[in-house]
Amino acid sequence: MLSAIPKCVRTFAARDSLQHIWRSNRLFATMGGDSYTLKYFNFRVLGEPIRWQFALAGVPFTDQRIARDEAWDAEVKYKIGWGRLPLLVIGEKTEISQSAAISRHLATKYGLMPTNELHKTRCDELVDNLQDMRLLWRPYIRESDPVKKKILEKEMVEVNFPFYLPRFEDFIKKMGGKEGYAVGDSLTWADLYLANFIEIWTDNHGKELIASYPLLQQHMKKILDIPQIKEWNAKRPVTKF
Amino acid sequence: MLSAIPKCVRTFAARDSLQHIWRSNRLFATMGGDSYTLKYFNFRVLGEPIRWQFALAGVPFTDQRIARDEAWDAEVKYKIGWGRLPLLVIGEKTEISQSAAISRHLATKYGLMPTNELHKTRCDELVDNLQDMRLLWRPYIRESDPVKKKILEKEMVEVNFPFYLPRFEDFIKKMGGKEGYAVGDSLTWADLYLANFIEIWTDNHGKELIASYPLLQQHMKKILDIPQIKEWNAKRPVTKF
Repeated sequence: MLSAIPKCVRTFAARDSLQHIWRSNRLFATMGGDSYTLKYFNFRVLGEPIRWQFALAGVPFTDQRIARDEAWDAEVKYKIGWGRLPLLVIGEKTEISQSAAISRHLATKYGLMPTNELHKTRCDELVDNLQDMRLLWRPYIRESDPVKKKILEKEMVEVNFPFYLPRFEDFIKKMGGKEGYAVGDSLTWADLYLANFIEIWTDNHGKELIASYPLLQQHMKKILDIPQIKEWNAKRPVTKF
Repeated sequence: MLSAIPKCVRTFAARDSLQHIWRSNRLFATMGGDSYTLKYFNFRVLGEPIRWQFALAGVPFTDQRIARDEAWDAEVKYKIGWGRLPLLVIGEKTEISQSAAISRHLATKYGLMPTNELHKTRCDELVDNLQDMRLLWRPYIRESDPVKKKILEKEMVEVNFPFYLPRFEDFIKKMGGKEGYAVGDSLTWADLYLANFIEIWTDNHGKELIASYPLLQQHMKKILDIPQIKEWNAKRPVTKF
């Protein structure tokens, strides 16, 4: 059975655990559910909100982690859809690219899409603003020269985070309800993006980043404490971002 | 009446035409419709698909064009929502940021959102891939040094466009229907994004960009020939991008 698991998957995580997911995915498919393969790098960044949706829905999927290396740059990306990951393969043929497109698709299927139209719009708005912040942060994580990396981090911590984080705090205050979710009174796919990015940014730059933002702190804790997410996080491969 | 029109609006377009839009917008609001103000720079890029939606729906809006200058960088952006434009103001208080979030919101209201869930996902996917292409193109339009600009253009024309454009062509082939729209058999908000970007890129880098892509050519022509869009384009301020 192990030989059926792609090599790139085996590289990154415990064999038993992935074999289990792989088997469940095939079994789920034979029972009439969609079979899912998520292709992404061995990062949390744009893949984790999708993985969390599967964990929340109790839907098995193959968590295929592709090496982001010279082979990717030289060859692999030219063969994969739009040359970007994540990519979700549903069944045998349907491929969906783009993290937010995949997340909206699953949210609609598995109950994390709001029914209120303005709430839907607020989810879109929050996620795209998180993406803007991520794009400012990307040069920092890609930089390999330690001196330049330090300069980029300083700019993030002194300029970009202080610009965006109070706006995310303010967003929860205005758009969230009494339950402490980001949009309205129930869990949405946008909560997963927000908590994921805040977790990654505090993991990389320290918890003091959100020391002045009580709603962001409460929000991250609330999402990470959801039992299915807690369980997934305890088992997932440990990655820097 | 003219004094009621913000100065930044008056800077960019014929007074009579804008005064007319402004009056219609107020009148529309008094009749129970939402009053809309679109705040964006004097660009087409992320604003035009929104303006086209208003034109298609026959809904008046205030087309407020904000100067992207030193004052923007030093001060104005800190006072505007997420510090990014476009921003749609609905009525007195509701502000929506992010081009795609605004477009989805209007598409749902005014009939350009597909009903089929997979088609919705395909629209999201297409627009986010266009955004990735736009982000590769952005350094080129922002570069002021003519030598560096030439180098960036060469990379776009020789590397990035040849990577993405065949994928957009292929997308129409696979996801479009017999009518030549990008997704399924009817006009969606994603068609407006695709035609807008292809128009801007061919305006800036020449029609030969899409010489090998008959579906992209037909698609752009089809969208630009829609009477309401034709009429809007004939009157809009002329902008480089």
